[in-house]
Amino acid sequence: MGAPQPGKSTPLVSRKSGQPATIVAVGDVRFGGRKVVLIGGPCAVENSDQMTRTAAYVSAAGGSMLRGGAWKPRTNPYDFQGLGEAGLEILAEARQASGLPVVTEVLDPRDVELVAETADMLQIGSRNVQNFPLLREAGASGRPVLLKRGMMTTINEWLSSAEYVLAAGGSDLVFCERGIRTFEPTLRNTLDVGSVAVLKDITHLPVIVDPSHAAGDVRFVTALARAAIAAGADGLLVETHFAPKQALSDGAQSLGPDQFADLAESCRAIARALDRDL
Amino acid sequence: MGAPQPGKSTPLVSRKSGQPATIVAVGDVRFGGRKVVLIGGPCAVENSDQMTRTAAYVSAAGGSMLRGGAWKPRTNPYDFQGLGEAGLEILAEARQASGLPVVTEVLDPRDVELVAETADMLQIGSRNVQNFPLLREAGASGRPVLLKRGMMTTINEWLSSAEYVLAAGGSDLVFCERGIRTFEPTLRNTLDVGSVAVLKDITHLPVIVDPSHAAGDVRFVTALARAAIAAGADGLLVETHFAPKQALSDGAQSLGPDQFADLAESCRAIARALDRDL
Amino acid sequence: MGAPQPGKSTPLVSRKSGQPATIVAVGDVRFGGRKVVLIGGPCAVENSDQMTRTAAYVSAAGGSMLRGGAWKPRTNPYDFQGLGEAGLEILAEARQASGLPVVTEVLDPRDVELVAETADMLQIGSRNVQNFPLLREAGASGRPVLLKRGMMTTINEWLSSAEYVLAAGGSDLVFCERGIRTFEPTLRNTLDVGSVAVLKDITHLPVIVDPSHAAGDVRFVTALARAAIAAGADGLLVETHFAPKQALSDGAQSLGPDQFADLAESCRAIARALDRDL
Amino acid sequence: MGAPQPGKSTPLVSRKSGQPATIVAVGDVRFGGRKVVLIGGPCAVENSDQMTRTAAYVSAAGGSMLRGGAWKPRTNPYDFQGLGEAGLEILAEARQASGLPVVTEVLDPRDVELVAETADMLQIGSRNVQNFPLLREAGASGRPVLLKRGMMTTINEWLSSAEYVLAAGGSDLVFCERGIRTFEPTLRNTLDVGSVAVLKDITHLPVIVDPSHAAGDVRFVTALARAAIAAGADGLLVETHFAPKQALSDGAQSLGPDQFADLAESCRAIARALDRDL
Repeated sequence: MGAPQPGKSTPLVSRKSGQPATIVAVGDVRFGGRKVVLIGGPCAVENSDQMTRTAAYVSAAGGSMLRGGAWKPRTNPYDFQGLGEAGLEILAEARQASGLPVVTEVLDPRDVELVAETADMLQIGSRNVQNFPLLREAGASGRPVLLKRGMMTTINEWLSSAEYVLAAGGSDLVFCERGIRTFEPTLRNTLDVGSVAVLKDITHLPVIVDPSHAAGDVRFVTALARAAIAAGADGLLVETHFAPKQALSDGAQSLGPDQFADLAESCRAIARALDRDL
Repeated sequence: MGAPQPGKSTPLVSRKSGQPATIVAVGDVRFGGRKVVLIGGPCAVENSDQMTRTAAYVSAAGGSMLRGGAWKPRTNPYDFQGLGEAGLEILAEARQASGLPVVTEVLDPRDVELVAETADMLQIGSRNVQNFPLLREAGASGRPVLLKRGMMTTINEWLSSAEYVLAAGGSDLVFCERGIRTFEPTLRNTLDVGSVAVLKDITHLPVIVDPSHAAGDVRFVTALARAAIAAGADGLLVETHFAPKQALSDGAQSLGPDQFADLAESCRAIARALDRDL
Repeated sequence: MGAPQPGKSTPLVSRKSGQPATIVAVGDVRFGGRKVVLIGGPCAVENSDQMTRTAAYVSAAGGSMLRGGAWKPRTNPYDFQGLGEAGLEILAEARQASGLPVVTEVLDPRDVELVAETADMLQIGSRNVQNFPLLREAGASGRPVLLKRGMMTTINEWLSSAEYVLAAGGSDLVFCERGIRTFEPTLRNTLDVGSVAVLKDITHLPVIVDPSHAAGDVRFVTALARAAIAAGADGLLVETHFAPKQALSDGAQSLGPDQFADLAESCRAIARALDRDL
Repeated sequence: MGAPQPGKSTPLVSRKSGQPATIVAVGDVRFGGRKVVLIGGPCAVENSDQMTRTAAYVSAAGGSMLRGGAWKPRTNPYDFQGLGEAGLEILAEARQASGLPVVTEVLDPRDVELVAETADMLQIGSRNVQNFPLLREAGASGRPVLLKRGMMTTINEWLSSAEYVLAAGGSDLVFCERGIRTFEPTLRNTLDVGSVAVLKDITHLPVIVDPSHAAGDVRFVTALARAAIAAGADGLLVETHFAPKQALSDGAQSLGPDQFADLAESCRAIARALDRDL
């Protein structure tokens, strides 16, 4: 135990004394600056109409980036695994129509090149936080990387995983806290807001939070989102669906359009209280 | 897993449909209303001068209540165990001088009557969250109770412990989240802000947060305090010492007077963003 | 992390270099010697007939000590809390009839003297592992103490709690591992057999295991019991009821008489493979 | 919570009513039969001399299979990552010389074909338990798979991961419990012997245990190994090095040749007490 010290074992990721925060740019979006970045979108890309509608209301609410899964890492092999390459094309269309950059998850090192052609940012999901071949390919892809924390990853391990990305040539990485696994069963995971505060101290890279996977229940997503910003998060990754009850996956934690707009407004007030904006 | 439902097993603690929030009064202090309550003070009561000084700057910063331990539950039998009854007298003097109500921990059911004569509110600490004889005595004492969550207490168990207090005749109880024990070693505990959001939904009783024990490191206390309020907490229990390096216990997590004032100001901005105050 | 070193902070409990194992005697029973001690009995003392029947088959199977709760620490205040003083009398009768010494839990420091008059050994339960006034009273009682590990207790904290008992004058203490709380929900708790191996190394005191609370399901109790002995445990504390389906508490994890006899036989074979007996 | 029921979501992995245990053959070795399989070898393959020496004393002690890592999944990118393809060649030589089949870890789906040419059994490591592309490739490779549990994996998730392997065409899979991550810091991980008992009940596939990674300390490896067999494990995966202090990785948990022989003898006695052998 004890407060973390800037680590010699992660020289590229750790903040050196006096080093300013790194701004990670994805299109026009800037992670790590004064503005808190709001990313919205469905768990899984389902069809073109869904993504176009979503992009419209995400943007109207103040969101500046779009998320959506083309490949879904599902615990069970018989669950819906995503549209794959067809999902990438739908994301490309939605970006074209909305002007919003897109982030999507890549699961397989063999897909990195393909995904990097379409996506503006590559997401490495929780289950792959120590998938080292994937981290290396993502780092070598030239695309910014969004690195989610694993469900049982310590902060030090997470920093080391980010170091794999940077050591492979990547320079733009954003951490994403999404809740950890604990003994407490009420919510899906336990959001570790302390990790946000610690990371803002020990690394120069931006940190965002996914309150949707942490809560697993729409009723509690906004409270967690506010807490994340209050703890210092540089952005939010929020699941939203234009019709949550029809979602092919994770409907219970997906905000509808009005709920998404309410979250944005509520979080904007917190951001402004900290001299930031959203 | 799954979102909690109002529990039939905890009829006094659970919020009935449409039931308004309960306001718990301790002297002039109101827990659960628009104003976020800030409680400050040292881990352990050391002497009269310390408590008088502390009361002055806590009050000046906007704090409305004083904390201080007369009996300290220490993991090791050879560590400082608190001043005991002499500590209670010092607390009484500090209250007299400052006008601030005091909350202090009681460890032993045989001490409840004695502590209740002096303290305005009885604290049940994390290690005693399932000390049922103590919960019953506290409930029967007539004093409001501050019930800390145990390091590995589920939300449902915590509600049941509160039910013991109310079933024994108590009516005024405030929950205090203080971080749970997880695999993550960087900070002392993992603050579970989700529990605040859940409790505000399923019980009519107020919920406050102790960011000091969660962080265990002054550098991160204020960020956790802000996150707590953003998640909906009705108050904060913060360790502060007029000279942290001289503290007999928990100095590493105790804010000095200026840091305490900064925390109050920073948290006030968050409270106001939520149409509350501090 | 790292292997534990004999602790300076727990001088009475830690094993000094070359120090032999301490044998804790309870009546004719010896904990810590060649013979593995088997303790059997119900979760809760219900009536005299129940205890007499239980004592008979526990003894016939090779058990040498009787357990049964007179006061039950129940999570919910409205659940059956035990027979209290009447339960003690039933235990005394069962001991008289069977010749087996009895161990029973004490929850309240005010009851220690009373319980110590009847019980041959005082059990401190998981929820009270850091109930320091209770530990001190138990240590001062003159009776041997069975100290269960808390659901959230690290090995180092457990040693410190034992040190409270010995520092208060106790000399005879037996540790009891009973499963810890983790993220894994399948069984009731996660039996930490590693803690048995570690304790046998760093303390001179005996260590037993409660496989019933760890498993929470009769189908898995015997496998855990065998594992415990294979890891070096000096005894077993097993829940058994002459008619598990009628048990007032914990029926799902209580072995019937035949299952208890099978467990004893299966564990005896493991003990003999290690040059011990049961 | 609650005892697991044979899962409809994992039809290939779950044990149907009355279904006999599946025997998984790797060369002459049989997992799941009367004989407990002992696998020994170093964390990392270092050179040919090392593997030849190791094979000799592993075999002499009663071990029937060889382990050794050619690719090592290291938390930090700057740590030794294994010899890669050269390591495979060394393993092939050691098999040739000793007649013992070899198991080695594969990290990257692109390497599965190559590793399957040499290795008799493919290990999927803890960090890759939910690396679904890798699970599918391993399942399609035609080689038996050794599937380690992740540090954070529930039993139900572990079954689902095995279902990926079988759904991809694999038929021979062995589970390997290796300790889970909990709050307890004394040993490297907490060996969950309960998972062994549960798996033997709900799946028809064999289950072995890695006591070396669970303990992280040679002093406790043998006790955990004995406990594993007593709980019903069908085999052991043990780290051993002919000169542990010179090992390139994991020296602290690697048994020397004499310690390995002692472990085998001690575990054989336990196996025989259960009418098995080793």
